[in-house]
Amino acid sequence: MLGLMQDHPLSMPLLVDRLEQRFARKTVVTSTVEGRTVATFAEVAERVRRLAGALDALAVPASAPVATLGWNSQRHLELYLAVPSAGRVLHTINQRLAPADIEYIVNDAADDVIVVDRSLLDALWPLVDRLPTVRHIVVMDDGAGPALPRDPRVVDYEALIASAAPAATLSVPDERSAAALCYTSGTTGRPKGVLYDHRSIVLHALSFLFADTFGLGEADVVMPIVPMFHANAWGLPYAAILAGASLVLPGRAATPGRLADLVEHERVTVSGAVTTVWLSMLPHLRGRDLAALRRLANGGGHLPLELARQYLDELGVPLVGTWGMTEASPLVTSARTPARTDVRPAGGTPPERLAALCAAGYPSPLVGVRLARADGTLAPHDGVASGELQINGPTVAAGYVGVDATDTITADGWLRTGDVGVIDPDGCVHVVDRLKDLIKSGGEWIGSAELENAVLTHPGVEEAAVVARPDETWGERPVAYVVERPGAGLTGAAIRSHLEGRVARWWIPEDVLIVTDIPRTPTGKIAKRQLREAGVTPPR
Amino acid sequence: MLGLMQDHPLSMPLLVDRLEQRFARKTVVTSTVEGRTVATFAEVAERVRRLAGALDALAVPASAPVATLGWNSQRHLELYLAVPSAGRVLHTINQRLAPADIEYIVNDAADDVIVVDRSLLDALWPLVDRLPTVRHIVVMDDGAGPALPRDPRVVDYEALIASAAPAATLSVPDERSAAALCYTSGTTGRPKGVLYDHRSIVLHALSFLFADTFGLGEADVVMPIVPMFHANAWGLPYAAILAGASLVLPGRAATPGRLADLVEHERVTVSGAVTTVWLSMLPHLRGRDLAALRRLANGGGHLPLELARQYLDELGVPLVGTWGMTEASPLVTSARTPARTDVRPAGGTPPERLAALCAAGYPSPLVGVRLARADGTLAPHDGVASGELQINGPTVAAGYVGVDATDTITADGWLRTGDVGVIDPDGCVHVVDRLKDLIKSGGEWIGSAELENAVLTHPGVEEAAVVARPDETWGERPVAYVVERPGAGLTGAAIRSHLEGRVARWWIPEDVLIVTDIPRTPTGKIAKRQLREAGVTPPR
Repeated sequence: MLGLMQDHPLSMPLLVDRLEQRFARKTVVTSTVEGRTVATFAEVAERVRRLAGALDALAVPASAPVATLGWNSQRHLELYLAVPSAGRVLHTINQRLAPADIEYIVNDAADDVIVVDRSLLDALWPLVDRLPTVRHIVVMDDGAGPALPRDPRVVDYEALIASAAPAATLSVPDERSAAALCYTSGTTGRPKGVLYDHRSIVLHALSFLFADTFGLGEADVVMPIVPMFHANAWGLPYAAILAGASLVLPGRAATPGRLADLVEHERVTVSGAVTTVWLSMLPHLRGRDLAALRRLANGGGHLPLELARQYLDELGVPLVGTWGMTEASPLVTSARTPARTDVRPAGGTPPERLAALCAAGYPSPLVGVRLARADGTLAPHDGVASGELQINGPTVAAGYVGVDATDTITADGWLRTGDVGVIDPDGCVHVVDRLKDLIKSGGEWIGSAELENAVLTHPGVEEAAVVARPDETWGERPVAYVVERPGAGLTGAAIRSHLEGRVARWWIPEDVLIVTDIPRTPTGKIAKRQLREAGVTPPR
Repeated sequence: MLGLMQDHPLSMPLLVDRLEQRFARKTVVTSTVEGRTVATFAEVAERVRRLAGALDALAVPASAPVATLGWNSQRHLELYLAVPSAGRVLHTINQRLAPADIEYIVNDAADDVIVVDRSLLDALWPLVDRLPTVRHIVVMDDGAGPALPRDPRVVDYEALIASAAPAATLSVPDERSAAALCYTSGTTGRPKGVLYDHRSIVLHALSFLFADTFGLGEADVVMPIVPMFHANAWGLPYAAILAGASLVLPGRAATPGRLADLVEHERVTVSGAVTTVWLSMLPHLRGRDLAALRRLANGGGHLPLELARQYLDELGVPLVGTWGMTEASPLVTSARTPARTDVRPAGGTPPERLAALCAAGYPSPLVGVRLARADGTLAPHDGVASGELQINGPTVAAGYVGVDATDTITADGWLRTGDVGVIDPDGCVHVVDRLKDLIKSGGEWIGSAELENAVLTHPGVEEAAVVARPDETWGERPVAYVVERPGAGLTGAAIRSHLEGRVARWWIPEDVLIVTDIPRTPTGKIAKRQLREAGVTPPR
């Protein structure tokens, strides 16, 4: 017997309704090279309806993917809303990928349209004739890049919006319909597509409103630094709309200094980015008025304790850990911020408090998290036992498009994350390492992330990466790659002696290499595979 | 095309999973006449599984209603979880209803089982032979009431739990399945059944976790004073479980003094009740340690400004308005609490701040709210125009069981709430009156609630109710019923002169009647129909 409640799908038109009916006066600020543009939510909604109408005018088939190659901007936000609301699939593409990967992804998805920032056209145009499914290239003029190619496929975004009839009704009756497509960056093998549905996006966005997660509300000003091509910018744009928070989008000229300007001048309260961004912004944030900031979230890898300490004790700003992945919409867990009154205690924040900030944190109420041992049995949540972290829930992928899910999904339906972790009795998750990044030395595991964290406590260290190298005696041994702070005059011996007492003696790497930089994947993660393949030769 | 996300229904077994897997060490405290009982969430979950098994053992058919007549207790919580998780329908009955209404409701619902607190057995037993569908009466021994009747239908709750095999799997694959049934109190006409589904209950519970709503989190201790027979106790028990908050259930001996004891000793952070409860508790809360309290929510009618002032300025505790109804699961809007730092400003909280606390407040992100004029056109949200408040969303009823929905649901699917309101440009809802409680005098409307609020600003007034009486000249004129504070020595003339300058002159009632009490409905609301029918004769 069914209940007798109203039938309202959790789908994207709900968000457009909120823009129009509830938060019409809230604003989206986009930073440009020249300054800033501001639009009210009502204005965005009107353009969203026009864009939805334009997709009809372009005869984009139902459920067809519409790809985007763009920076974080109001126009990208319009695409975020209009494409799924109009029954098509938003396919965000990472513009930093190699051309061959972009070509593969567009063809694998069979994109019907690509919408691209003019400043990114040079990355796309050389490929266009190898993308047979693409009928239209819609160009968003962001003030840089080549002139619009004379090609019948090319359309100007603003001309399209101006000429389109606004869609009067936006309706996606089945919330399980495909809404957005995002390919994993694929540190090994081909990129694989994760296909979000409307329900997963709305539920995931709602999870940012929970007090114990990000607690987004109407008083917030949210700046997603995390790119909009990356797992829906963590869902932050959607979450901000549901919460009625204002949005600040940093555009294409997102240098650390400009980002710091935006934080201060736009009174940003919440932002999310990967560790390298927080590292690069730190010097630019010093001396600023950061009173509005209440939460900075770190993603894409573990948050180094020393970085969290600098943000908290020097800037008075909580920078906290999160854990997620494209396959999980992406947020799985988030660490809790300390209460404002606890910020900047005399003598600095105690290390155990900092460690709590740097944890992956607590799962959203909608996501299940468990630990599986190598033999498939479950490990207890006792803060000691480790295992592969597996997750389930309505915001978690059931597999990849067109790929057999056997390796990804367990027989009982949980996603294997490939991350190794520990779960405290109170539910706090700690990600120890990637399964494939663990170092097996003398039959015992060395956690590369934990070892990196220990190296990073040295005041002269800017960045660190630890990978395995084959070893005849021990099987594997760790190698540390270290970027020093300017003028620190680091040596490998200094790092080794710094590690004494901080980690088990047998964890201390024989090889500590001072390098000028550490290679990263297109999404900003440390490219460990590349480092492993480089062996002990520093990649100078 | 469907997305490729995991299929996890938003249904009650998810809550049982959270009890077991995530928040196993959290507790449910039940106050008893002798003291208190404590159970961990894990222990509750184990009993829930046994109870689910017991429903099978009793051969309760799928989707059959299992009724409860009970106080707020751990056992009632077990029923909240087990009955829907086991694929049956939880039917909570208001024990304060007249026997004829209870009889009508049980028979209308065709309840298969009734679970009743022993202390309430006297209210039920005389009816039992007129309840032909009821096969079993399960008695929860709460330490009072008659001995268990010798009758083959009667079963002891604890014996049932002890003998049952725990249900190994709890699964409700279709989240639109019926989960719970609650009859509206029906100030006019027969009670009507609202049939919640699993989806509506879970989404509604999640809305309490939003930072701008109640912001429930793991640090909270939630005490639902609102009875568990009333619209799922506002969904607070379900919300607390999803948030990982501890629960305090006040049991059958919930006197104002005992409730105040619980608030202080259990370190309650959040509670909800109707206005009369907050009025009665106020003297008992004075002089207590209330530092843990962060939000008291008022429901079931407008929150008087003077009461909010006393809580905020005298106790330092934010008591804020909410607006809801059985048909909306029930929460629609909630006012925002002031920041802690704003509490107790020198000279008291300014009236406009208090008015904001007493507003119905802001809608949950999942509920749509609009204003409809008498002619069906929509009124603007400008803080001036009034109209009937209409609502929609997945937590709102599509009608009543077995009743034609034409009068309840508009042609475009919105629920007519029967409340008249105003919506500010920022979305804040103010409920002005019940449509049927408005007083039409000389062709203009007088808001009975607004007039009551003005009467309540007189320091000698304890309670006030305003209703219409027929008038030959004006059509209708207001009549005020006033309960004075002990020793205040009030007169009608004093009230009338107090109202000068506070409301329009023509609003001032000719008839102000000092009475010893004001009649209430079984859910604690002022029984305006009864007052209207009483005319100008005070109900002494």
